This record gives sequence, structure tokens and C-alpha cells, in this order.
Amino acid sequence: MRRKEFTVTEEEEISRFLQGMSFGFLGTVGPDGRPRVTPLNFVYVDGYFYFHGSYAGEKMKHLQGSDVVSFTVADEYALIPSYFSDPEMACPATSYFKSVTASGRAEAVRDLEEKARIFTSFMSKLQPEGGYAPIDPQDDRYRVALKAVSLTRIVPDSITAKFKFGQNLEQADRESLIRQLQERGQNRDQETADLMRQYCPYHT
Amino acid sequence: MRRKEFTVTEEEEISRFLQGMSFGFLGTVGPDGRPRVTPLNFVYVDGYFYFHGSYAGEKMKHLQGSDVVSFTVADEYALIPSYFSDPEMACPATSYFKSVTASGRAEAVRDLEEKARIFTSFMSKLQPEGGYAPIDPQDDRYRVALKAVSLTRIVPDSITAKFKFGQNLEQADRESLIRQLQERGQNRDQETADLMRQYCPYHT
Repeated sequence: MRRKEFTVTEEEEISRFLQGMSFGFLGTVGPDGRPRVTPLNFVYVDGYFYFHGSYAGEKMKHLQGSDVVSFTVADEYALIPSYFSDPEMACPATSYFKSVTASGRAEAVRDLEEKARIFTSFMSKLQPEGGYAPIDPQDDRYRVALKAVSLTRIVPDSITAKFKFGQNLEQADRESLIRQLQERGQNRDQETADLMRQYCPYHT
Repeated sequence: MRRKEFTVTEEEEISRFLQGMSFGFLGTVGPDGRPRVTPLNFVYVDGYFYFHGSYAGEKMKHLQGSDVVSFTVADEYALIPSYFSDPEMACPATSYFKSVTASGRAEAVRDLEEKARIFTSFMSKLQPEGGYAPIDPQDDRYRVALKAVSLTRIVPDSITAKFKFGQNLEQADRESLIRQLQERGQNRDQETADLMRQYCPYHT
């Protein structure tokens, strides 16, 4: 699905990010008007988010009362210490991350063929090595299981993405931070340095 | 703060988990009744969650209209493939994770001494190696900065924790999964196997 707010390149990046993240956070509103944030495995297929679960539980109660939802996926790449840019003050300490937030409505998926298709996407994403019989509603064992599990589709009416990698920095400060990240060389520091260059507004 | 729903040991585990996680997800409700989920760095101090940010932005607008919030922190330890327990069906595929969800109310922290204390907690957590002048509201440079940044305290009226590590498994199935996790030996598989033993209801 093309969204007017993103270019094709941005859409592909968002899809790739979502494909690489196994879980996200569903925001719902209860009958008492209080929000709830539930972590869930998900797939993002053709512009829709899907999650599954039992038919019972508070999250499903929320959805029965109000179908408006938010769904956010975020990943932190690096903590940026204050001393990378200021020898004295703590204030510049920050983190670089990617996050995608969808706002929209939730609807139940009941068609068994469609359920089988989406659960196949879940398995392809979370168990790409295979090792299971194809999910087929004609298979008696799967048909019972597909009926017993709830599947919910989030139809976004907006998606926002924030990839924060120092885009607002002056060029000299950016280069200094990239160098210090590479020197520190922990966890995903090199990847973060690469993303700082990739998202640099002066290099597009 | 002691909470009646948890033992001291559980409280310590929850605190340790929250101390080890750099960001969580805030759920708020907008003036239009729609939820929003915002990823945020946080600290958990004396039973309260704290996050900071600018005074502008949608999240703060939500809080001005409604102070009821949810805050969830979650970490996935391992994806458990279906074939660890079933050679045919995809259904047993799952993930093992820790999650903590607080429900409560948000309130602004305005006192500069209190702000300095909490920002010091942020720095201790996210930049434990130091490298900055102590955050002191008597220091002119910090006083200006402390006034300019918003700090919000979440006062939970309930906290729930879910640490899912196969507690519902029969003993033979648990041992089989632990063995297969150890054989796979990816990422945090060994840590997950250890947690399966730690949280085994038969071994407490």
C-alpha cells in the first residue's frame, strides 16, 4: 500500500524495519477511558498490522468497547553520552532509535483462508527456517486451531516514522559523533554510525 | 515502595528488570478518545516511573486533557519454534519474554531539586560511566536547563508483571525445551534456559 506521507524508499525502509522487529506495543482504551499498552508479536502485511491471541482477556474487552488503536514499534540503536558533545553538561545525553507508530482501527479477521495466509506470514517472519506443515484450513487439525485463535487486523489511517540519528547536527558535530561511536565500538555503534551517515540530510 | 501484589523477591526482580531496560512505552488518550503509544527513555525510582521531554508535542497535549496513562516495558528473550515441541503443527510457536505494565496517573514534576534528583537517576542509569558535572539547580547552567525541560512522574495504581518462560509446561516438556535451547545456543538462548529453570513452578 502506498501512503502519501512517505516516498517509496521510505516505505521500503519502514517495511524492512517492521519485518526485522518481532514485537510491538498496542495501545487500546478501556470502557473506563483508561489506556492500556500491550506488547505483542505482529506482522505487517500489505500496509496492515496483525496480531493474534485468545478471545478472552482485557485487550479483547477493550477492542469490543472501542476499536481505535495505536501500534508502535521501536528499537534503540545506541545511547549517546553527553561527553560525546559536551565535556561538562549532562544535557546532550540522548539515544538514537527507529520508531514507527500507526494510528487506526482494529477489526477481527474471521475468514479461515485469510487467517491461514496471515499466520503463514507470522511463521515466515518468526520461524523462517520452517519445520511445520503448511497452514491450511482444509487440514482438520489446523481448521480447529484457526477457529480457536483470534486474529486482529489494524487498519491504519496514519503511520508516522521517526528515525533519530542526529539529523539536526551540524556537519562537524556529526563527524565527531560518528568518530566517537566508531571508537567506542560497542554493540551496534558501527551500525549507528552508518545510519548517521545514511540519514544525514546533507548526503541525500 | 512495597506493593501488596508482589513479594519482596518479585519486587526486586521487577526493579532489576526495569533498571536494565532503557526505554518503555507510554499509553495516553487524546482529546478525541484515541490512544497513542510513545516510546520513551525512563527511570523507575521508589515505585514511580519518570520520563522527560519538551513541553510541546502531542504526548503532552494528551496529558493535559487526560492524566490516565499506561506504561509498559517488555523484552523478548527467545523465539520458541513450533518444532521444539511439535514435529508437524505450527501452533506451539511462541516467544518467551518479560513485561511489566503500570497503570496510573501522570503528574508534572516542577520542583527543581526533585528534577535534579531524577535527572541524576537518568544519568546513573543511561550513562553510568559518568563524564558530566553533577546536576545541581544551584548551578546557573543547569537551572536554566532544568526549567526548560518537562519531567513527568507516573504514579501507578497497579503494576502487573508477566515473565513468560514456559511455567505451564509439564516437567518433561520443559526439560526438552531447555535442552533444545541450549543446543541451538543463539543470542540469549542459554539465558532463556536458565530463566526457564529459575521460574519453574516446581523448583521454588
